[in-house]
Amino acid sequence: MKNFNDENFLLQTNTAEKLYHEHARQMPIIDYHCHLDPSYIARDHSFDNIARAWLEGDHYKWRAMRANGVEERFCTGKDVPDREKFRKWAETVPYTMRNPLYHWTHLELKTAFGVTRLLNPASADEIYDHCSSLLREPGYSCRGLMQRYRVEVACTTDDPVDSLEHHARCKEEGFTVKILPTWRPDKVMAVDRPDRFRAYVERLSVVSGYNISNYDDLLLAIRSRHDYFASRGCRLSDHGLEEFYAEKTTSRDARDIFNKVYGGASLDRDETRRFKSAILLELATMNWEKGWTQQFHYGALRDNNSRMFRLLGPDAGYDSIGEFPTARSLSRFLDSLDERGQLAKTIIYNLNPCANEMVATMAGNFQEAPAPGKIQFGAGWWFLDQRDGIEKQLNALSLLGLLGRFVGMLTDSRSFLSYPRHEYFRRTLCNLIGNDVEQGLLPASELPFIGKIVEDVCYNNAKHYFNF
Amino acid sequence: MKNFNDENFLLQTNTAEKLYHEHARQMPIIDYHCHLDPSYIARDHSFDNIARAWLEGDHYKWRAMRANGVEERFCTGKDVPDREKFRKWAETVPYTMRNPLYHWTHLELKTAFGVTRLLNPASADEIYDHCSSLLREPGYSCRGLMQRYRVEVACTTDDPVDSLEHHARCKEEGFTVKILPTWRPDKVMAVDRPDRFRAYVERLSVVSGYNISNYDDLLLAIRSRHDYFASRGCRLSDHGLEEFYAEKTTSRDARDIFNKVYGGASLDRDETRRFKSAILLELATMNWEKGWTQQFHYGALRDNNSRMFRLLGPDAGYDSIGEFPTARSLSRFLDSLDERGQLAKTIIYNLNPCANEMVATMAGNFQEAPAPGKIQFGAGWWFLDQRDGIEKQLNALSLLGLLGRFVGMLTDSRSFLSYPRHEYFRRTLCNLIGNDVEQGLLPASELPFIGKIVEDVCYNNAKHYFNF
Amino acid sequence: MKNFNDENFLLQTNTAEKLYHEHARQMPIIDYHCHLDPSYIARDHSFDNIARAWLEGDHYKWRAMRANGVEERFCTGKDVPDREKFRKWAETVPYTMRNPLYHWTHLELKTAFGVTRLLNPASADEIYDHCSSLLREPGYSCRGLMQRYRVEVACTTDDPVDSLEHHARCKEEGFTVKILPTWRPDKVMAVDRPDRFRAYVERLSVVSGYNISNYDDLLLAIRSRHDYFASRGCRLSDHGLEEFYAEKTTSRDARDIFNKVYGGASLDRDETRRFKSAILLELATMNWEKGWTQQFHYGALRDNNSRMFRLLGPDAGYDSIGEFPTARSLSRFLDSLDERGQLAKTIIYNLNPCANEMVATMAGNFQEAPAPGKIQFGAGWWFLDQRDGIEKQLNALSLLGLLGRFVGMLTDSRSFLSYPRHEYFRRTLCNLIGNDVEQGLLPASELPFIGKIVEDVCYNNAKHYFNF
Repeated sequence: MKNFNDENFLLQTNTAEKLYHEHARQMPIIDYHCHLDPSYIARDHSFDNIARAWLEGDHYKWRAMRANGVEERFCTGKDVPDREKFRKWAETVPYTMRNPLYHWTHLELKTAFGVTRLLNPASADEIYDHCSSLLREPGYSCRGLMQRYRVEVACTTDDPVDSLEHHARCKEEGFTVKILPTWRPDKVMAVDRPDRFRAYVERLSVVSGYNISNYDDLLLAIRSRHDYFASRGCRLSDHGLEEFYAEKTTSRDARDIFNKVYGGASLDRDETRRFKSAILLELATMNWEKGWTQQFHYGALRDNNSRMFRLLGPDAGYDSIGEFPTARSLSRFLDSLDERGQLAKTIIYNLNPCANEMVATMAGNFQEAPAPGKIQFGAGWWFLDQRDGIEKQLNALSLLGLLGRFVGMLTDSRSFLSYPRHEYFRRTLCNLIGNDVEQGLLPASELPFIGKIVEDVCYNNAKHYFNF
Repeated sequence: MKNFNDENFLLQTNTAEKLYHEHARQMPIIDYHCHLDPSYIARDHSFDNIARAWLEGDHYKWRAMRANGVEERFCTGKDVPDREKFRKWAETVPYTMRNPLYHWTHLELKTAFGVTRLLNPASADEIYDHCSSLLREPGYSCRGLMQRYRVEVACTTDDPVDSLEHHARCKEEGFTVKILPTWRPDKVMAVDRPDRFRAYVERLSVVSGYNISNYDDLLLAIRSRHDYFASRGCRLSDHGLEEFYAEKTTSRDARDIFNKVYGGASLDRDETRRFKSAILLELATMNWEKGWTQQFHYGALRDNNSRMFRLLGPDAGYDSIGEFPTARSLSRFLDSLDERGQLAKTIIYNLNPCANEMVATMAGNFQEAPAPGKIQFGAGWWFLDQRDGIEKQLNALSLLGLLGRFVGMLTDSRSFLSYPRHEYFRRTLCNLIGNDVEQGLLPASELPFIGKIVEDVCYNNAKHYFNF
Repeated sequence: MKNFNDENFLLQTNTAEKLYHEHARQMPIIDYHCHLDPSYIARDHSFDNIARAWLEGDHYKWRAMRANGVEERFCTGKDVPDREKFRKWAETVPYTMRNPLYHWTHLELKTAFGVTRLLNPASADEIYDHCSSLLREPGYSCRGLMQRYRVEVACTTDDPVDSLEHHARCKEEGFTVKILPTWRPDKVMAVDRPDRFRAYVERLSVVSGYNISNYDDLLLAIRSRHDYFASRGCRLSDHGLEEFYAEKTTSRDARDIFNKVYGGASLDRDETRRFKSAILLELATMNWEKGWTQQFHYGALRDNNSRMFRLLGPDAGYDSIGEFPTARSLSRFLDSLDERGQLAKTIIYNLNPCANEMVATMAGNFQEAPAPGKIQFGAGWWFLDQRDGIEKQLNALSLLGLLGRFVGMLTDSRSFLSYPRHEYFRRTLCNLIGNDVEQGLLPASELPFIGKIVEDVCYNNAKHYFNF
């Protein structure tokens, strides 16, 4: 009987233990995609208490609480004392057994606060007090936590209109962790709501200094912001898509559609897809010109609950895995870039695990020297960012590509406490490989090389691939 | 080497054994969805022999026999002696190794008849005689079997035009097992065949006493039957769908489409979908008004073999898993009910396992206090009602929702001998959790709580959720 | 700790070892579907060196090399010395750990050449020299290799216009391995490119001696070639499809569409589908008339990289798993044949593993005496032809059909060195069943019967099913 959450957590064999403790554990963290708020880092925010650090904005936990029958005010309410919210969360935690939240919670308690007691109603207050008191100490500020987890680089997710002032401040103040922006131009493509699109374009106009009255202006304004991001150290773009778009669209089409939507008219499905196709191609071309890596997160069906969307807005725990077959569009999209010799390094993250095999094999169609693993099948994301999802991604990647060339894990998180997800990933990786070795599926004689691969996937590959 | 089908069948660890024998085993059965014929229970039918009890209407077994090269007359023929049919089944059984039929068969033989000998051509006659002789004893009648397996509640599946007289008789006679009807109004939506639809509506008119000449009449008639079902103790509806329907449809549209199809004209695809959308919303609203739980079984592609359909009709073993991406419609359907505050407790069962993750995450979008697990991701169904399917459903539910709030297993069966499927489910559940504990994925210190969760999933959750 | 690639490779239990060594291992090979070049067998080609035998035409290896950052000239270049290419491959091999290439490579080295040293840059030259020298010996010619692996039958894949002269020569010369042609009429359906279609039809006209000026002529010409293939011992057809086609198409439609495309005009999507539906039905009917088995490989998205397609043509490693839901068309296609009583024995291979369950259950809808397993869910194919894919196919087949009636493995390969894939499959099969026995999921008392099933799946079933 193995112990829960001890030093050999998730490691089922001696080889797995060896791989983890001698190779994976020591590697620093490159968190090349996250949703941390850069202003928190810039001002080195300290959380008042563990409820603030854990429950503010964490829709994973809200979803679990709602499923457990907890009233909404304990999730997102403004006038409920933090301790009360925490108690409701503590009540829910035992019911998250077998859900990644159970592991994440106890891994975070242990690695950040040294707490090994299980969280439940009986321990809630003690844990609340202990962690909250630590959080008010200097070593537990946002910057302190990042250093505690040995983060080397963190790439936030930023809108083209963002000023990036917080990134600048971190750099100026010599913060040892490199905080880099990521270009996330989703709103440039969001023509589904003409009013919001227009408002966004107007904002872009102000920020960029370009007077935008047509499609060509729009591209100029985008490009100027793209240049600005590059000047601030940006190395990655990120694109949130339902599916890929690769309809043939002429410049003239794009101009006409822009005029229509900018004028306030709704687009039909075909126009929407053509416009998105045109813009996506332009954006991808800019990424290639800069030598950036482009990331595509696709397949989420968002904001399913209209009533709650009106109350809470997006990213409140009402999103789910969608069903978006997109192989053909993805193929056409990558191919049209490759045809022009303008296909940037690319990472594709799918949300529906059914697409694992499609994505893993699609990547193989556009691999090309000199970069090993130019096209990457991205790590298990969002709902798949747990042991089962990680294993499925690693297995599909291994079977249909080259595991050893994988750029590895990222947190994709809004929380300064979620760095143990890297540890979780590393343990899972070492466990899979360790099992293979012990079962004779990989030769034990090659353990030195295997150890190197583990280190590469945990750290070196990302460092080289992104050129950090 | 573990023994086959002994007391620790399917239980791979000591913890699994402990969970099963100390927690799961003792719980009574709430079989909240089945296809038992209530007339059999009302008249307390006794089967002449094991072939009648096992092979009559069991399309699972017919499919296996056909795949084994057995002639159709031994499956569904009217003039073949029962013993001959049984011998053909016994010949097929060894070839079902690794198919759930192999486990179900021997679990049923053991738990109902005390037979531990394996079924094959050599043992066929002995087993036939032994079981048939027992079946003629009083304790082996339909009611006897239900009591033998400690069933507390069984919910049959009934058409709105059914009289429910058999349910009444069971109650009047004080049968200790609660036999409740379930509202299954699929024919109300079946506008694909105008002639059959009209015939059904006419029957509904007679039974309800409403003269149905338009869409509004139809709704009134349906509602009166819905009321009647409620008066007879119905607590659940069940809806068999290929996919979900959530097209915007005005009342006027619905009325026009009704007139068209009732007049004998075929509907086009769009009209069909809009009509189904309109009716489905009405039905779901009625479910909410009554405080029922609504079940949706979706994703089957039925009656694939036209030649055999003409000979044998539906449910004869010619159905299969379909490919029906329906995430967006499902989202819209649930959302439109939630918007009006009329979303009943809901269980969604998918037939294609590819949709497990989609359904599990979709449920999370509509969870709401006070009921824990208001929206349920239903147990592995039909082709997925086996160890692998059960494990996949339990894992997806665990990883993307809260296992501890799950209402658990149902037989979905036409046979009075299939209650061991609850045992099968429970052993699988305990085995999964037991493995987690022994691997240190769950803390062994929490075994009392884990035992409680097992009991909840096996029995308590269903009892509370359905308010039995 | 098990050894890598020893005699008990992939066999995790004693029962698995017993099943493999006492039952599976001894069975000869029936390779009922491959892509070997029959001219190589006819002239009993010897490879100059291991690079030629391994890297010429093997797009699996090219893909891995490209993903590893190897330049294209080392994959497909004409002017690079073979040894240099081999070194690049050897450099890549360690990075294929967890990919089937790692296992295939070392299994082939061991079983063909007795090499147990691992391939990597350090061993590359030694292994190159050793294997190349053996390949020039008589026992290592194409025929020698087939005999070395105890192949009894190999079915190549041939176009209707092929002369089949090489098959004839093998037979005339009394080669002990039966080399049979397979009818692969994909180009007859390839109306997507009118110019190529016309060129193909003209070639068919010449070869068949039929003057083809309309659809009816086309069918006559096809049929005459079908007859010719039958006269040369052909027993199987094979059809590569993206998805199934089962649109209602009249003869008149088909004639009109033929005239249009033959006249050089492009077809729209609907015409294309209708034409393919019509032809596919005709082809399937011919298969039934001859008593052949028809194979359908569906679901690949091919030639994704246009740039490389222009340079290298098809089958160069730029194909991937597609997303083609086709359940309804597949159902209609099989049903329309069954309706006429003209459904031949059929094997369906899907490329996207998401369709495993659909295909496995669809097969069950058309099973019919007297042939056990008339409709087969085909073995894991292409990207799925590895341990995980094989296990998933075997599990889905077991759970939803009858494993014991499965016709088993095929290489689907272009290489004379890939026969160990049968060994790989057999080890995986024995391991799965062995685990079941040791876990008490199957009764150990039935090991003799289980051993027989293993032998059947490895050899006997194919022999009977195809009537070799």
